[in-house]
Amino acid sequence: MSDLLTKDRKNIWHPFSPLKGLPDPKIISHAKDCTLYIEDGSTLIDAISSWWVNPLGHANKAIADAVYKQMLTVEHVIFAGFTHKPAIDLSERILNIAGSDFKKVFFSDNGSTSVEVALKMAVQKLHNLGVKRNKIVSFKDAYHGDTFGAMAVGQKGSFFTAFEEMVFEPIQIPEPNPANWEGYLQRFESILQTEKPAAFIFEPLIMGAGGMKMYEPEHLDAMIALAQKHDVTCIADEVMTGFGRTGKMLASEYLENKPDIICLSKCLTGGFMPLSLTVVNQRIVDAFDSPDADKAFYHGHSYTGNPMACAAANAALEQLCTQETQANWSRIHEAHLAFSKELKTFDRVKNIRLRGTILAFDVSDSSEGYFSSVKKQLQEQFLASGVLLRPLGNVVYVMPPYVITDEELNKTYQAIIKGLESL
Amino acid sequence: MSDLLTKDRKNIWHPFSPLKGLPDPKIISHAKDCTLYIEDGSTLIDAISSWWVNPLGHANKAIADAVYKQMLTVEHVIFAGFTHKPAIDLSERILNIAGSDFKKVFFSDNGSTSVEVALKMAVQKLHNLGVKRNKIVSFKDAYHGDTFGAMAVGQKGSFFTAFEEMVFEPIQIPEPNPANWEGYLQRFESILQTEKPAAFIFEPLIMGAGGMKMYEPEHLDAMIALAQKHDVTCIADEVMTGFGRTGKMLASEYLENKPDIICLSKCLTGGFMPLSLTVVNQRIVDAFDSPDADKAFYHGHSYTGNPMACAAANAALEQLCTQETQANWSRIHEAHLAFSKELKTFDRVKNIRLRGTILAFDVSDSSEGYFSSVKKQLQEQFLASGVLLRPLGNVVYVMPPYVITDEELNKTYQAIIKGLESL
Repeated sequence: MSDLLTKDRKNIWHPFSPLKGLPDPKIISHAKDCTLYIEDGSTLIDAISSWWVNPLGHANKAIADAVYKQMLTVEHVIFAGFTHKPAIDLSERILNIAGSDFKKVFFSDNGSTSVEVALKMAVQKLHNLGVKRNKIVSFKDAYHGDTFGAMAVGQKGSFFTAFEEMVFEPIQIPEPNPANWEGYLQRFESILQTEKPAAFIFEPLIMGAGGMKMYEPEHLDAMIALAQKHDVTCIADEVMTGFGRTGKMLASEYLENKPDIICLSKCLTGGFMPLSLTVVNQRIVDAFDSPDADKAFYHGHSYTGNPMACAAANAALEQLCTQETQANWSRIHEAHLAFSKELKTFDRVKNIRLRGTILAFDVSDSSEGYFSSVKKQLQEQFLASGVLLRPLGNVVYVMPPYVITDEELNKTYQAIIKGLESL
Repeated sequence: MSDLLTKDRKNIWHPFSPLKGLPDPKIISHAKDCTLYIEDGSTLIDAISSWWVNPLGHANKAIADAVYKQMLTVEHVIFAGFTHKPAIDLSERILNIAGSDFKKVFFSDNGSTSVEVALKMAVQKLHNLGVKRNKIVSFKDAYHGDTFGAMAVGQKGSFFTAFEEMVFEPIQIPEPNPANWEGYLQRFESILQTEKPAAFIFEPLIMGAGGMKMYEPEHLDAMIALAQKHDVTCIADEVMTGFGRTGKMLASEYLENKPDIICLSKCLTGGFMPLSLTVVNQRIVDAFDSPDADKAFYHGHSYTGNPMACAAANAALEQLCTQETQANWSRIHEAHLAFSKELKTFDRVKNIRLRGTILAFDVSDSSEGYFSSVKKQLQEQFLASGVLLRPLGNVVYVMPPYVITDEELNKTYQAIIKGLESL
């Protein structure tokens, strides 16, 4: 065992990883574009964008240069009472992307905190108006993060079992689908009327960690209209879906009815560093637009509005907003579409689904869900084929950086086929 | 109003700031060492280390160069199943600092998440051992962050009023002081026996946002001994106190009895970017040291173990561990000590307190607490004198970067005197 590996095993507690029983972690010596270089000389194609964060390839020189320049100017400064150009530029870019319904941007550090900020704003909005309502509606298979507020509105079950009594009880409903759509809106409206929730939070169109479940914009549109009719704040958690993943800059662009709050993170900084934004409309602003100290929103992390992260985001958005990037979304989508036809020939492949740059399917297995046994078997086979894919239990998905080449995409597909053939 | 300022006012929702009624934020054009350069040509001494994060001065070249080099090597990679040298080096440095009681390091993004991780570990530790206990003891005036779990164990009152029914109910006790010490341990033990909490969380020696209240290591030592006797996990939130603030590398070094978990953030990256660590001892590890999926700790943020942040931290620790830095802690402490004698001549200055590089005192006022009216008056006067200080209500404190010069310290003290004289 290498010296580094010995130290890693001894000192480091990795996320979402049992302390025993897993293969040794691979040591990444460097990375470029879609390739991860392992210490042992082997390479991997990063077909999941390093946990869905990297849209433009690793070690992107333009982003690195922008961050370096920023560090030598001002790496960080307190963001209460002070401001700076990188944050102001970013706020303008983001509001342009979000569209004219959205008015203000609140900065925090990661997807979990952007969700916590959104939930708190939705509840305090009513509190400031003298209305006491704090229930939250979410989808049963949702994943919104790991902090206590984010856990509360996420999927119940093994991840968070130990903490179930420590979080507030959400109102959980199944996501809409063709099989349950009949009467769905009536049932939803009945919940809105009887439970009087403060907010409805959802991952628009694709529920990520809950198993890449996809649902239709038309259904969500109708739900948002209904929720807003009942004065329920609609929170779109676009932490995963944002910045082109679904084939549009935001998944919310598929909707006629806009949410009140959008949470953004992950690809925002081009995969470089943590940063998140909670973007709100005028209805939210109005409830806080007061000099009254009791109505202010008392939330802030030390590194709120970090100039380095803003500089990374500005440089990333420069590249994400090009026609070239948008052409890549279509190119990847078309490639996924062609490959999904090939996938249909495998008996154990079920429920193939596709939205923008994300392809997902289930592998039928005696034990399904996150702890399915095929996960380990497939993942090892994929790695052996030189491709980083990380099945969510029996759900295999591809979510590549947009700069992935056709050759790398093909290699990814071949690794999947080889994996499926090995079962 | 400048174009940038107009956009800031329109687009940005600043942390801990009402949307109306505050002075316009100052636009920082650049910063170097302890000086913030404002767009209008004026300058400020950053006497609070930009919300307590900056120990080595702004735009520190060695840290910037280390981060730049890292970005061009690998800016970020998934940290589940993968690892890298910057994280491994950092884990080794931190475990060396924390001492031989501490065994493993879990990475997250900010102080709030490091606390949430610690609370979850303490509760799941028992859950994994088949024990159902989830109550948490904290200090009444504590501040541990803004996410739902961190809010639960923080000071009740105006900051979090709207969310009080959404967080778990902590067991809150006053921090120990000479006036309440008689019988304190008996009362504490009675709580441990009757409530059977899972954890006791505290900011060691100095409670930051709750008003820079200070208490004695001997008292905390006795509490930790008692808590550990009752199998209660002791969590030291050293997010603010870590890395030299108290005159030692960690405040826990003042203690004979070590906590089970230490939370670190803020100064960790030299004030550059968000990163936090939750450092645990063998008792915590033992409860999770299993291949059983049900016993794993399912927590992870996308940017967990971010190589750039680790590179910043490694470069910062290189500088923080020098004799020069440690000499600065003493130099600042001695200067504070001398100045505190001068402060005593002001009738309205009460409760002058000092620990390491932190000086704090109260200004007596008709309305005390965070919303005291002297806050605004003093802060404006300090800024007019060219010094960034940000009173916590009627509590004035100085928490400078360690590289602050004697001249800058004197200018800070003179600004305080001028502020006090203006009242």
